[in-house]
Amino acid sequence: MSTDHDEQARRERALTDRVLASFSGTEDDRLRELMCSLTEHLHAFIREVRLTQDEWAKAIGFLTAVGHITDDRRQEFILLSDVLGASMQTVTVNNEAVAGETEATVFGPFFVDDAPEVERGGDISGGARGQPCWVEGRVTDVAGRPVPGARIEVWEADDDGFYDVQYADGRVAARGHLHTDEHGGYRFWALTPTPYPIPHDGPVGGLLRATGRSPMRAAHLHFMVSAAGMRTLVTHIFVRGDDLLEQDAVFGVRDSLVEDFVEQPAGTPTPDGRDLGDRTWARARFDIVLAPGTP
Amino acid sequence: MSTDHDEQARRERALTDRVLASFSGTEDDRLRELMCSLTEHLHAFIREVRLTQDEWAKAIGFLTAVGHITDDRRQEFILLSDVLGASMQTVTVNNEAVAGETEATVFGPFFVDDAPEVERGGDISGGARGQPCWVEGRVTDVAGRPVPGARIEVWEADDDGFYDVQYADGRVAARGHLHTDEHGGYRFWALTPTPYPIPHDGPVGGLLRATGRSPMRAAHLHFMVSAAGMRTLVTHIFVRGDDLLEQDAVFGVRDSLVEDFVEQPAGTPTPDGRDLGDRTWARARFDIVLAPGTP
Ligand SMILES: [Fe+2]
Ligand SMILES: [Fe+2]
Repeated sequence: MSTDHDEQARRERALTDRVLASFSGTEDDRLRELMCSLTEHLHAFIREVRLTQDEWAKAIGFLTAVGHITDDRRQEFILLSDVLGASMQTVTVNNEAVAGETEATVFGPFFVDDAPEVERGGDISGGARGQPCWVEGRVTDVAGRPVPGARIEVWEADDDGFYDVQYADGRVAARGHLHTDEHGGYRFWALTPTPYPIPHDGPVGGLLRATGRSPMRAAHLHFMVSAAGMRTLVTHIFVRGDDLLEQDAVFGVRDSLVEDFVEQPAGTPTPDGRDLGDRTWARARFDIVLAPGTP
Repeated sequence: MSTDHDEQARRERALTDRVLASFSGTEDDRLRELMCSLTEHLHAFIREVRLTQDEWAKAIGFLTAVGHITDDRRQEFILLSDVLGASMQTVTVNNEAVAGETEATVFGPFFVDDAPEVERGGDISGGARGQPCWVEGRVTDVAGRPVPGARIEVWEADDDGFYDVQYADGRVAARGHLHTDEHGGYRFWALTPTPYPIPHDGPVGGLLRATGRSPMRAAHLHFMVSAAGMRTLVTHIFVRGDDLLEQDAVFGVRDSLVEDFVEQPAGTPTPDGRDLGDRTWARARFDIVLAPGTP
């Protein structure tokens, strides 16, 4: 006996309409809009894939496991949002393209509010291991005018792929903030970025394995740049040539954020005369264009 | 400065495409299909509502709360699926319309496997409180041929709105199973169904309050009917005239499942001669049409 397709379509649509109608008494207009759109898309997904009862039960079990591994220190729901590109899509819709401004990317979980201030040309590494890397650039608005006094926060993982806050010893390293000079210029020593995995020993890691995906993030250096009259920019720079650029686990890479990190042989004079002995180092340039807005 | 809409649309689409591409290495074809459809719909939702970072963070917090209240006894993710109509839509796509078969509805959390067998005409109430209700009907296939020996499981809440398994004393009441006779007929004593709330002291209850929705389920009697060569039917019958029919918290009501529960004055002779003394009682008829399939 074959399906009565008209009747089946009617039943599926009628059910969705009934759920939509249930939100008609929602006082908060925005909440009603969110719930109705969520309902449409959730139902469309179930109808489109013809979700089986067994798959539904597996999804419930998966979400339950995500909930149970989440605690004050570990946020597996954010990881899930990250690996589905939902975090990055939220960033994208909240940083609308204007005219040549530097693109935003994900904030990530490793920012801290009170990172030390460094002088321009100072070193944010704080003793963290890694190759020294000179980073410089200029902050301007979309008309090319310099933005003096912009606050730049930077943070990154060390050579072992860990942020300072992931160590139990309370160290503060590989993070700091500085301000641009009167020409919008900035410069600092950091570490050449290295790749690291997102936590993959939980249900989200299982999803990555089941779908043949890598838990690795492409190597990156985090920036947050704020100035009066400007939209605050949260972004990263990535390393041209990194094999992981095309498979970043959280989809944070934008082509426009990939920069040359130029390796310098040991003994190459440094921009500020710093003596690095027999160590190699790298240098990168990142010119930042801020969109207008409120910080 | 206004948005560059073309560039913005390009970025949003490119991101979704990148996430879709990340699943191209998924070995399991069905898992790949599920993840790609989920990605499309999740991203479409975020783009359509222009989800703010604050709303995203609230959603993460909500899911975290759902995860933390869920334990071996309480399944808040299923409740969430229920109140979004996702459970009912899954039931709908898995019970495709054929030709006049009785419609399915949600299974619910209160079925137990080893409910006692009762004779045809016996009483499933097991001492639970409520108005006696005579339920009878016939099980046929879609051609109207009787289905003898079909197994009928029935279960329901008592007059206080609780299922036996919600009491701590291990009672077995208001549930049972029986089989149809050689003409497909069945009959039993049960209780006139009464409404009850789904658990609403957790985050899902908060969502219902915020959206002006009731946590009540329309009064119902659960059925599960199985027979060789037939698609197993999981359904309810509802009570015509119940104020809650249009606002069932889990969207389980189908118009075709609303039946007359006809109130009988005290002293009205019962179908099987049972003496109910000075109590009123009710009677309902539910003819069941099974779709072909495998049990
Ligand atoms: Fe990072
Ligand atoms: Fe129920």
